[in-house]
Amino acid sequence: MSRIVAKFGGTSVANLEKIEHAADKVAKEAGAGHEIAVVVSAMAGVTNQLVDYCRGISPVHDAREYDAVVSSGEQVTAGLMAIALQKRGIQARSWMGWQVPLLCDDVHGKARIEDIRTDEFEKRLRTGEVAVLAGFQGISTCNRIATLGRGGSDTTAVALAAAVGADRCDIYTDVDGVYTTDPRIVPQARKIPRISYEEMLELASLGAKVLQTRSVEMAMKHKVNLQVLSTFAEEVGSDLPGTIVMDEDKIMEKEVVNGIAYSRDEAKITLRSVADIPGVASKVFTPLAKANVNVDMIVQNVSQDDGATDMTFTVPRGDLNAAVDVLKKECTDTVHEIVTNTDVAKVSIVGIGMRSHAGVAQNMFQALADKGVNIQVISTSEIKISVLIAEEYLELAVRSLHRAFGLDDPQKA
Amino acid sequence: MSRIVAKFGGTSVANLEKIEHAADKVAKEAGAGHEIAVVVSAMAGVTNQLVDYCRGISPVHDAREYDAVVSSGEQVTAGLMAIALQKRGIQARSWMGWQVPLLCDDVHGKARIEDIRTDEFEKRLRTGEVAVLAGFQGISTCNRIATLGRGGSDTTAVALAAAVGADRCDIYTDVDGVYTTDPRIVPQARKIPRISYEEMLELASLGAKVLQTRSVEMAMKHKVNLQVLSTFAEEVGSDLPGTIVMDEDKIMEKEVVNGIAYSRDEAKITLRSVADIPGVASKVFTPLAKANVNVDMIVQNVSQDDGATDMTFTVPRGDLNAAVDVLKKECTDTVHEIVTNTDVAKVSIVGIGMRSHAGVAQNMFQALADKGVNIQVISTSEIKISVLIAEEYLELAVRSLHRAFGLDDPQKA
Repeated sequence: MSRIVAKFGGTSVANLEKIEHAADKVAKEAGAGHEIAVVVSAMAGVTNQLVDYCRGISPVHDAREYDAVVSSGEQVTAGLMAIALQKRGIQARSWMGWQVPLLCDDVHGKARIEDIRTDEFEKRLRTGEVAVLAGFQGISTCNRIATLGRGGSDTTAVALAAAVGADRCDIYTDVDGVYTTDPRIVPQARKIPRISYEEMLELASLGAKVLQTRSVEMAMKHKVNLQVLSTFAEEVGSDLPGTIVMDEDKIMEKEVVNGIAYSRDEAKITLRSVADIPGVASKVFTPLAKANVNVDMIVQNVSQDDGATDMTFTVPRGDLNAAVDVLKKECTDTVHEIVTNTDVAKVSIVGIGMRSHAGVAQNMFQALADKGVNIQVISTSEIKISVLIAEEYLELAVRSLHRAFGLDDPQKA
Repeated sequence: MSRIVAKFGGTSVANLEKIEHAADKVAKEAGAGHEIAVVVSAMAGVTNQLVDYCRGISPVHDAREYDAVVSSGEQVTAGLMAIALQKRGIQARSWMGWQVPLLCDDVHGKARIEDIRTDEFEKRLRTGEVAVLAGFQGISTCNRIATLGRGGSDTTAVALAAAVGADRCDIYTDVDGVYTTDPRIVPQARKIPRISYEEMLELASLGAKVLQTRSVEMAMKHKVNLQVLSTFAEEVGSDLPGTIVMDEDKIMEKEVVNGIAYSRDEAKITLRSVADIPGVASKVFTPLAKANVNVDMIVQNVSQDDGATDMTFTVPRGDLNAAVDVLKKECTDTVHEIVTNTDVAKVSIVGIGMRSHAGVAQNMFQALADKGVNIQVISTSEIKISVLIAEEYLELAVRSLHRAFGLDDPQKA
């Protein structure tokens, strides 16, 4: 017997039919004798509708009231899921965040979980009753409903799994696992059976939208075994068809490169002829940070003999105009000429094995060079190498790298 | 300065525009220095949608889960109303039933309010903060959300008004008060400025659907001054444009007849040749009560010399088939012939003044006789006289009685 937390996202509970389907999965696991806690999102589209209501009345609104309004979506799904389970002869009940209680701080709209008091909750789990927890919400110190922000239901599931010492946290979604890359670009992309938290974090933050970064971080911190799997496949979590995200130490065979991620949401900003003196970078990036512009790759080339340099960095495309405005307004003494380019994309290779393997970067650059792909910016971390290229080369680059690092090989599946 | 509870029903908060309009009313009252608690229903249609979700998954479902689901509608309106008030510069916050707390018994789906702990709630009211309470719900002894059943938001408002000692409980709805009769039938119908709880109860239970019976009973018990008024009129509650429901002792001029009510939801059942011996009525009505058939008017005529009698009574039309089934199954030894008729309607005159006036019944019967309306069944209470007539005479009867008791007279307005 295992204790399992199973989370169903918005597309998995989009309508009554899908809620029933999800209930079938839970019933199967419960029937196998496992203790199950289910975490549900709002039915697809409901949260957007509720957010629109709040904005419709006032674009600027009290986050505590926003939380009272939008948290209702998960409340509805939790009740409906409990009814669907009971219909299947499964003992079940819904829980709101305030009932558990799931205690949060007072940062409404993006609250952080501080503690989950699971005495009563676990007592009922042990009786075989399936707990259905409304995701995305807890209770703040002022006794108000607080929502957890983007990806809040994933975070709820992982936090709950940590709190009740679950053997596994199954994230049911509309894909059946984490892939070596986007199958729409590379048909040979394979499902990764096991991946480390660190790799998953790099892939998540690079735009593989299977799991929210925050929930992976929390799983890593509390060593929660996460499993990503499809609501729409026949198997349930205990038949292990998905991708398990787990501690690196438990993964025997560490792949040099486990996945190829990409992001089109990139814009490049080049500041020409910036004075090549100490403190310049700070003068440029401090006002950008204050304006909440998320700067990613940064390179500086000492290209000129006149004591000036070119500085290049990337920002999300949506932040480009704000970034340029800030630079023009706040950096008049350092920045003279700004060149922007949105026809760029980022491609990254990720793998914990590259820590102990030399020549990985060289292989990457060679593979790209072989196809005539020009690299504009390079940035690296311990388990990741990213390059910025012209967007039109994106698919070609991803396919080339997928092949170059042996990920096309069906034997590795 | 007064303390006012203002309740807005589903049609008064049907969409964002109407919520804003209701917020204007509250802001006006708050601006006049009153302490205001607002009670809101779900946006029109939302509760039905949520009920349909529950039924869609399972026609028979756990009332506790049903409550978790349907109570979310009022939660949403409460948050949106608080945002709308804040936008108008009014200090405001939403309250869920469990936050106050509004304590209920465990009869989920139709819970009864047992206590309202208003310490924190009143403390905040006194600071000038408008409280927006989600109607229709409280928290049961097992820490679950419990809904109060039909008319639950009216009941919430009245109970809150009693608990915080409000000077007035304003029920904003889509009509601007209680009328002497249905203006669709009698264009001369007038708004009644003041009416006693007892009269309102008779009118409510007779199908004048302005206020739910239960909320009027509670107002009577706790002597809460109720005011019915229109959300869509220009005035707000403090300008007194509606109907005040209050203690009879405070009404100086007691009308003999204050209103003419009617109901088309009537079916007549006649049992022919029932044995005229003690215990027969009990044998007939006990099984009907057990089957939850709501029997209303009952008459028995000793019309035959052979020791048999005809017994006639009315039931709501929707209960007719169930009633006949029960009689055929359970009363085989007493009931031999059943005659049913759904072409009937009930017309009633209501007035506390009739207690001290003789000849009221006679006036009623004469007015109907003058128009050739045949009376099939008569039933009376201290402040009400009801007659059952053929449905086709309904409008004629209502108009005749409205004129006969001087209610057409504009001088009385």
